[in-house]
Amino acid sequence: MIVREKPGPLQLLFAVRGSVLPHIAGELALVTALAAALVWLDRHVQPLPHLSATPFAVFGIALSLFLGFRNNAAYDRWWEARKLWGGLLADLRSYARALEMFLPDTQQRHQQLRLALALLHLHRLNLRRLPVDAAAARALGDNAALATAPHPPCAALDAITAGLANARSAGTLDGFGARALSARLDSLALQQAGCERIAGTPLPYVYSLLVYRTSYLYCLLVPLALLEPAGWLTPLFAAIIAYVFFGLAEVTEELAHPFGATPNALALDAICRSAEISLAPHLGEPAPEPLRPVNFRLD
Amino acid sequence: MIVREKPGPLQLLFAVRGSVLPHIAGELALVTALAAALVWLDRHVQPLPHLSATPFAVFGIALSLFLGFRNNAAYDRWWEARKLWGGLLADLRSYARALEMFLPDTQQRHQQLRLALALLHLHRLNLRRLPVDAAAARALGDNAALATAPHPPCAALDAITAGLANARSAGTLDGFGARALSARLDSLALQQAGCERIAGTPLPYVYSLLVYRTSYLYCLLVPLALLEPAGWLTPLFAAIIAYVFFGLAEVTEELAHPFGATPNALALDAICRSAEISLAPHLGEPAPEPLRPVNFRLD
Amino acid sequence: MIVREKPGPLQLLFAVRGSVLPHIAGELALVTALAAALVWLDRHVQPLPHLSATPFAVFGIALSLFLGFRNNAAYDRWWEARKLWGGLLADLRSYARALEMFLPDTQQRHQQLRLALALLHLHRLNLRRLPVDAAAARALGDNAALATAPHPPCAALDAITAGLANARSAGTLDGFGARALSARLDSLALQQAGCERIAGTPLPYVYSLLVYRTSYLYCLLVPLALLEPAGWLTPLFAAIIAYVFFGLAEVTEELAHPFGATPNALALDAICRSAEISLAPHLGEPAPEPLRPVNFRLD
Amino acid sequence: MIVREKPGPLQLLFAVRGSVLPHIAGELALVTALAAALVWLDRHVQPLPHLSATPFAVFGIALSLFLGFRNNAAYDRWWEARKLWGGLLADLRSYARALEMFLPDTQQRHQQLRLALALLHLHRLNLRRLPVDAAAARALGDNAALATAPHPPCAALDAITAGLANARSAGTLDGFGARALSARLDSLALQQAGCERIAGTPLPYVYSLLVYRTSYLYCLLVPLALLEPAGWLTPLFAAIIAYVFFGLAEVTEELAHPFGATPNALALDAICRSAEISLAPHLGEPAPEPLRPVNFRLD
Amino acid sequence: MIVREKPGPLQLLFAVRGSVLPHIAGELALVTALAAALVWLDRHVQPLPHLSATPFAVFGIALSLFLGFRNNAAYDRWWEARKLWGGLLADLRSYARALEMFLPDTQQRHQQLRLALALLHLHRLNLRRLPVDAAAARALGDNAALATAPHPPCAALDAITAGLANARSAGTLDGFGARALSARLDSLALQQAGCERIAGTPLPYVYSLLVYRTSYLYCLLVPLALLEPAGWLTPLFAAIIAYVFFGLAEVTEELAHPFGATPNALALDAICRSAEISLAPHLGEPAPEPLRPVNFRLD
Repeated sequence: MIVREKPGPLQLLFAVRGSVLPHIAGELALVTALAAALVWLDRHVQPLPHLSATPFAVFGIALSLFLGFRNNAAYDRWWEARKLWGGLLADLRSYARALEMFLPDTQQRHQQLRLALALLHLHRLNLRRLPVDAAAARALGDNAALATAPHPPCAALDAITAGLANARSAGTLDGFGARALSARLDSLALQQAGCERIAGTPLPYVYSLLVYRTSYLYCLLVPLALLEPAGWLTPLFAAIIAYVFFGLAEVTEELAHPFGATPNALALDAICRSAEISLAPHLGEPAPEPLRPVNFRLD
Repeated sequence: MIVREKPGPLQLLFAVRGSVLPHIAGELALVTALAAALVWLDRHVQPLPHLSATPFAVFGIALSLFLGFRNNAAYDRWWEARKLWGGLLADLRSYARALEMFLPDTQQRHQQLRLALALLHLHRLNLRRLPVDAAAARALGDNAALATAPHPPCAALDAITAGLANARSAGTLDGFGARALSARLDSLALQQAGCERIAGTPLPYVYSLLVYRTSYLYCLLVPLALLEPAGWLTPLFAAIIAYVFFGLAEVTEELAHPFGATPNALALDAICRSAEISLAPHLGEPAPEPLRPVNFRLD
Repeated sequence: MIVREKPGPLQLLFAVRGSVLPHIAGELALVTALAAALVWLDRHVQPLPHLSATPFAVFGIALSLFLGFRNNAAYDRWWEARKLWGGLLADLRSYARALEMFLPDTQQRHQQLRLALALLHLHRLNLRRLPVDAAAARALGDNAALATAPHPPCAALDAITAGLANARSAGTLDGFGARALSARLDSLALQQAGCERIAGTPLPYVYSLLVYRTSYLYCLLVPLALLEPAGWLTPLFAAIIAYVFFGLAEVTEELAHPFGATPNALALDAICRSAEISLAPHLGEPAPEPLRPVNFRLD
Repeated sequence: MIVREKPGPLQLLFAVRGSVLPHIAGELALVTALAAALVWLDRHVQPLPHLSATPFAVFGIALSLFLGFRNNAAYDRWWEARKLWGGLLADLRSYARALEMFLPDTQQRHQQLRLALALLHLHRLNLRRLPVDAAAARALGDNAALATAPHPPCAALDAITAGLANARSAGTLDGFGARALSARLDSLALQQAGCERIAGTPLPYVYSLLVYRTSYLYCLLVPLALLEPAGWLTPLFAAIIAYVFFGLAEVTEELAHPFGATPNALALDAICRSAEISLAPHLGEPAPEPLRPVNFRLD
Repeated sequence: MIVREKPGPLQLLFAVRGSVLPHIAGELALVTALAAALVWLDRHVQPLPHLSATPFAVFGIALSLFLGFRNNAAYDRWWEARKLWGGLLADLRSYARALEMFLPDTQQRHQQLRLALALLHLHRLNLRRLPVDAAAARALGDNAALATAPHPPCAALDAITAGLANARSAGTLDGFGARALSARLDSLALQQAGCERIAGTPLPYVYSLLVYRTSYLYCLLVPLALLEPAGWLTPLFAAIIAYVFFGLAEVTEELAHPFGATPNALALDAICRSAEISLAPHLGEPAPEPLRPVNFRLD
């Protein structure tokens, strides 16, 4: 996630971090070069058909609407993913508090909290398809075996439940507590499955094909409509049109994968750290420092 | 579901799998041929009226807005269906965990879990209007009779409830557990009914009529506005316009039926397999392998 | 509800059932005739002002956006109504299952189920402002007096509650069961009230006035902009524009009343039948057949 | 709320009730007069610059999108407010039923129901900033002192809770009942606070400024683009454009205040009456008549 | 928050408070000056290319759609933030009522209520990154130490939970009460975390870059298309276009930060005061006065 104020004049000219320009440089160059070649051909070799701009207006508006729809869907995925992680954080905190109320045994409570933090890190690794990293190893501690289960976050939730079932059969957890804690775990499981849904179900591929094919058709044909009114400014206008269309398509690609490794993906490391800060008092430990953006980027 | 990265240049040119091109080839050919015929008529037989492009601009924008609305509604159906199946998966896992906490008898628990997996497969078959297949037969096991009930998923839920009612009257399930498990079943039933709602209530037919009639009117008349500015490029432009409008209409048709058999429908088989993986430890069985995409397609 | 596949070529030309054409034939005839009269006047009597098309482009786009908004709102009403009835169905099934778990007395259970089915039919009649029909009379049985209450669905819910209160004071229903069943009834009541909200609160009338007035202004003035570019095709184009605008306005009117008697209204009879099928095993009765579409229409 | 069928031809020409025309007559007159003055100046005094229509097309579309956004937001407020009141009605009915199940003492029950009706009327008065009227006085009865509290609806909810707390400490309300009734009260409080949120937080003022300033700029400058193509029809077109833009802005203003006194505001009186009808059987009283629209208007 | 009626004629001309004009004066001046310079150059030094307006129409519509999307997303953040605070207020009131029912000890109850008010103020300070102010200090009272915790709102919630856990182990809070109060605290925690999500996750930075870069490109190039049709009115039109685009972008920036210090941010102080008014009767104290807007602004 890029953490930065509203861009000032200098950033508008030069900001690259978080920008999509580097990702679409190839498309821009291709479109610009082709437009320049067409102007040259038209003037020096063979006059090309000079098309009216109106068909491109209709086509351009249809394409804008379509890009807009896809952008909306991608942003909704990104924001829903963020909501789910916010919900996970809130649920973890509430779980810790409910443990204070319903599970009097301190050791059992600490075991539950450690498993809960392990769950969060395993979930993060699972979404990002990463191996166990330093932060996760620290959180896993004695529960490192969970990371090798077929589905690590489920294994962590199963271990948490087993602990509660033990407490229940041992009589340290009554029916009210079992209901309260179990409801909180259900909510955690629902949000965790929601994240997996987003990670595992991309935007329908057919949209990507349709939108990229249409954008290319548009950008490669539009110079024919610009030859007459824009002359040698044609490559500039073609480049601007390509910037708008391919730029938005690229932003959409990034936001549609909120758990990816791009600069605009969600800052899952920072949310895991927030959970550790919130649970520290319940574990009787000092709270770690929150993560800070490095070079405007928070991971 | 097509599982594939952002399309590269080659795929943009040649990808057919997941594309709508094969489905709209007839419309494209018809529109192109008619446009070519009109140009030929205009030039060699009898001059046709050369219309201004502006009325088509308004008409085209109105049509784009309308196609956009229908596409939105279809995508919402598709994504809601995916959310419901994600919720079913989460609820099944939570149900398995709640059983660990509230139902101490292992045999009763395993019976419940087997019925729950049967429910999921019967629900899948019901949505897709399929007979019992290999995966479902394996999940059904001794409960094969459920598949012949008037409404198989309801029968499975009824059987699960009967098991709980027996445990309750036998005293192995207390009031807290009955409330917790029953609440989870209610949630399963709500999401199952939600899927049936989507499967049984198509987008209003009047939209399909209106959108296809209008698209045909547009594509068949638009050559009259292109004759003058585009000349012999008229068939190309007409084909592009038809590609955009009919392509989007066709995508909409596919996504509006998220439980269909098209490449862009939901991967229900894979979700059922995920449920089997998650429930395996609760049944004391080894987890099966997750399903993998075959030729980029996951079913 | 019209149950029909994607329209084929023949249906596109001839389908009338579910189409809006019959409802807007008057408007189309009026607009076409006026446009023809204007062309005739312009050519043979007195030249009329030939307007530029651009003001109509802006006006047309503004009108499209507005029609689009109204269409969205109507579709949302239609789909929310369908969701509420889907929720009613799921809740009825869950209520039947919860009764199995929490209310051991078979006779009390059957009485509850019969009242629940009566509730559903009374709710349907109430929404559609119909008198008791055959299906409702069959479902009401001994509870026919409910249909004469000031608010029949509320009376049915009150009777269900009274049954539970009796069971509770008789000791056959414990606290857990009272909570579980009461929560399910609350959910039923919420969805029933939601349907009444949609049925009793139409889209604001001011929108209808604004949208019809503006559509008429547009369709009656647009021939002045078509006289020059379209000539004797003016009536055709005016008719197409009127078809798009009035057609969409008419679809909106139909969908905005999801409980009406139009072909595109919801199939409440079929949903009531689904509920009877699902509750039959709990009543120990054979399940009736599901309703089938008649002439592509399901009511 | 205006309760009226789809407008017929006569209403389209003459309906004033529920229309926005009277509210924007001043703007329309101003714009028309100015446009006429410009045409006169241009023809008889000094030729004015004749602008191309294209810049106005872009500007007009941007303005349409913006008006559309604001209209959407206002309609969402209106519909959310209606949902909240529908939820209040459903919750009141459910509360009455839950009382039957969990609070055996008839006198305590009646006291609760009277307080609940008082709550609804006090909430209505609070939203509309009205003093106690006849309907509210009837509902308040012995609880008239509530109307003088700093926050009357909160005071009513506090009084309801105090009654339950008394019943609990007196032993006539057990833990299950306390939980069930308290959950229902929480839901009532949430919806009541939701209404206050809508009433107390208008659409951001900056939108109103931006949209009115831009609409005026557009309507006052657009005659310059119409002088040439429309001639003496310029005032007519300017008036139509002003009708569309100011009309939509005015509708937005009305719907954004769903608890106001305008014809398109919500019919809170009728909803309060519905609650009285539904609660009458629980109080052992005859149900009053539902409110009917007077001159198509329901308050 | 600006609390003001629909703007009248004078306000439209002169209102500055709540307007975005002061924030975009620099951009407007730049665009106007550049446009004037281009006209001068074109007329007196060297004729510049006179572009057709059509490419700018397409570009302008694409930009409008994009600005519209961003504005929608920002407004949704703002309204969601308002909903969360409304939910916090409702939950606090419900918590106070639930305490009356389930926690008979007056002193414990008052301690809980004081901590709840402290929570609300600490949450406000945390969102706005402010030090303890007068209102917060008054609410904190003996609990001032909470403000120095690593995460003050979490510390307040932990303290509330500790109080309940004490009451539970002391036997003054039974299982039903523990469940009811704990559920309410979970809801408070969820809404508090929701606010932190909005405050800590800005709209993706890439959108800001894209939208400002595109707006500048548009406004700096559009004079080339206006030179011919608008002549010396070019600077006026360029300024109007810049006003619409930059004005909307600026509104978006303000609303996207609903907890900021801008005039259009949420009135958190007033909501905290509302909570104090609602809780005063439960604390046996006189209710303070509600906050009033100062110079139309409520903070």
